[in-house]
Amino acid sequence: MYGLDKNKRYDVVGIGNAILDVLGMTDDAFLQKHGMQKGTMMLIDEQRASELYDKMAQTQEISGGSAANTLAGMAALGSKAAFIGKVCDDQLGRIYRHDLAAVGVDFNSTPSTTGKPTGCSYILVTPDAERTMNTYLGAGGDIYEEDIDEALLANTRLVYGEGYQWSAPHTKAAMLKAFNIAKANGGKVCFTLSDVFCVEANREEFLQLLDAHFDILFANEEEAKALYPGKSFDEIIGIIQGKADVVILTRGARGSLILSGEQRITISAVPVKDVVDTTGAGDLYAAGFLHGYTHNMSLQQCGDLGSACAAEIIQHIGARSLKPLGELVA
Amino acid sequence: MYGLDKNKRYDVVGIGNAILDVLGMTDDAFLQKHGMQKGTMMLIDEQRASELYDKMAQTQEISGGSAANTLAGMAALGSKAAFIGKVCDDQLGRIYRHDLAAVGVDFNSTPSTTGKPTGCSYILVTPDAERTMNTYLGAGGDIYEEDIDEALLANTRLVYGEGYQWSAPHTKAAMLKAFNIAKANGGKVCFTLSDVFCVEANREEFLQLLDAHFDILFANEEEAKALYPGKSFDEIIGIIQGKADVVILTRGARGSLILSGEQRITISAVPVKDVVDTTGAGDLYAAGFLHGYTHNMSLQQCGDLGSACAAEIIQHIGARSLKPLGELVA
Repeated sequence: MYGLDKNKRYDVVGIGNAILDVLGMTDDAFLQKHGMQKGTMMLIDEQRASELYDKMAQTQEISGGSAANTLAGMAALGSKAAFIGKVCDDQLGRIYRHDLAAVGVDFNSTPSTTGKPTGCSYILVTPDAERTMNTYLGAGGDIYEEDIDEALLANTRLVYGEGYQWSAPHTKAAMLKAFNIAKANGGKVCFTLSDVFCVEANREEFLQLLDAHFDILFANEEEAKALYPGKSFDEIIGIIQGKADVVILTRGARGSLILSGEQRITISAVPVKDVVDTTGAGDLYAAGFLHGYTHNMSLQQCGDLGSACAAEIIQHIGARSLKPLGELVA
Repeated sequence: MYGLDKNKRYDVVGIGNAILDVLGMTDDAFLQKHGMQKGTMMLIDEQRASELYDKMAQTQEISGGSAANTLAGMAALGSKAAFIGKVCDDQLGRIYRHDLAAVGVDFNSTPSTTGKPTGCSYILVTPDAERTMNTYLGAGGDIYEEDIDEALLANTRLVYGEGYQWSAPHTKAAMLKAFNIAKANGGKVCFTLSDVFCVEANREEFLQLLDAHFDILFANEEEAKALYPGKSFDEIIGIIQGKADVVILTRGARGSLILSGEQRITISAVPVKDVVDTTGAGDLYAAGFLHGYTHNMSLQQCGDLGSACAAEIIQHIGARSLKPLGELVA
């Protein structure tokens, strides 16, 4: 009912950073000592990654990457999804491939040949369940225009992209190519602002893309405020409504707001007794929402499914569920 | 008070398989279809590992290995521990090293140079929280007598070994060398029977070692029954009591039994509301017990600490705690 083309093979094709999450617990003092801003993502180089890892406590390794988490969630719910991203042909890359295949996401990008290892995000989870990410992109940053499979992009109802891809000109160019192919073939363009630092570094461009390209936009409250500096949340709602078919503003435990046409739909967060790790909360909200959207649910139902998926993912470590997501959010 | 030498640098030196656990959920039908016996460990080759991994759902990667889990638990509680085992100098090996260092276990074994990758155990967790392990030893099986650091073994109050090391003549020889050095220097020998298949394959040798070498023996009920086929649990208690300074028989949710001299101490399991994954329950029981033992707690306290550690580890995926174990079992 959203004008999506029924004759496409894929519900969604996503482009994003292929990143293995290395998750460990820490305290606020550790974040301060190492100059991290809680709740954000910072890009780091290989040396900093090595130094930081040496200082981290016991970790768990779980596949991650924002767009890939969203696709994995959608596929687990029954959507047909494909991912474009870059791993190295190393042990971590094989883990990454396994975990997408295991949930049914097609992932046929050729491995990176730059010699950089598969990327890792060193994620520090504090006792308040907030996650602070330090990402060494590694091979994950090696997405070029030639990696954008035209046949794939022409055959999807939605293309999904991350603000994170605006960290380098070649990844941005690849993303824009993907958007253009999908759009030219009747697909819709979905985008997440990803992180406050992405918005601050690319504000004008994101605003232009919102006017010209984006059909569905996901932003959390902080990212929306970074997009419109000095504006209150209520002012932002008034400004942003109508700039895309659907704008979804998420607010953590305070739920989310769906803006579409003249509609403003308030979605409650699903209450969670014991929040363990918020890693992937936004990604899984998007997964639930977009699965609903591609399966003709009402916007209210899309939002509720997003909330349910987010609630599931924050009850355990990491952004991928070991149990079938569909059962967990039923 | 247990006749342990105060002037040793280490509370415990352990020798075991260095194995990264690859944990995923499954159902009983999957175990049956692939010829696995629930609750046991099976050794598999690289090809079988690859085939099995391809069929597994989303996984998490967490360091494991029975003896290493016990050492990690002891170190987290405050014991001084060192590990002897073999990884490859690959990505998984670096994860393995990190996780032991992070909790304070000394691990200075030179990496394996046979070309085999760091070993992995493909662990299938069923809805009843039981774990079924398929272990590709890889580099982990490359422990030889020359890897047994004499200075290290001479300087420990306890040496801890796994029944798993009886899977090859060279690992067994290495383990016996470690036992002999420790014993000759006033250390005590601790051993876990590890798995029913280990006991069935090495029954006579384990019985001889129990008479001649072992000071502290850990066995679960099934392993004890495999050691004395046809005997009831009560009969086994009568037979095994006195064969070592301390014999600890664990019985899962039914608690454990400590046999020492003429004493029989019954230890209750710590009730757990939601058992998620029993991987490492026995290893962490041993950690709690041996930390107590090397820190002059009563046998009752040793058993209670073992139960508390086992209760903690079965409430999450994997055999290593992300949070400080001491706080969790306080």
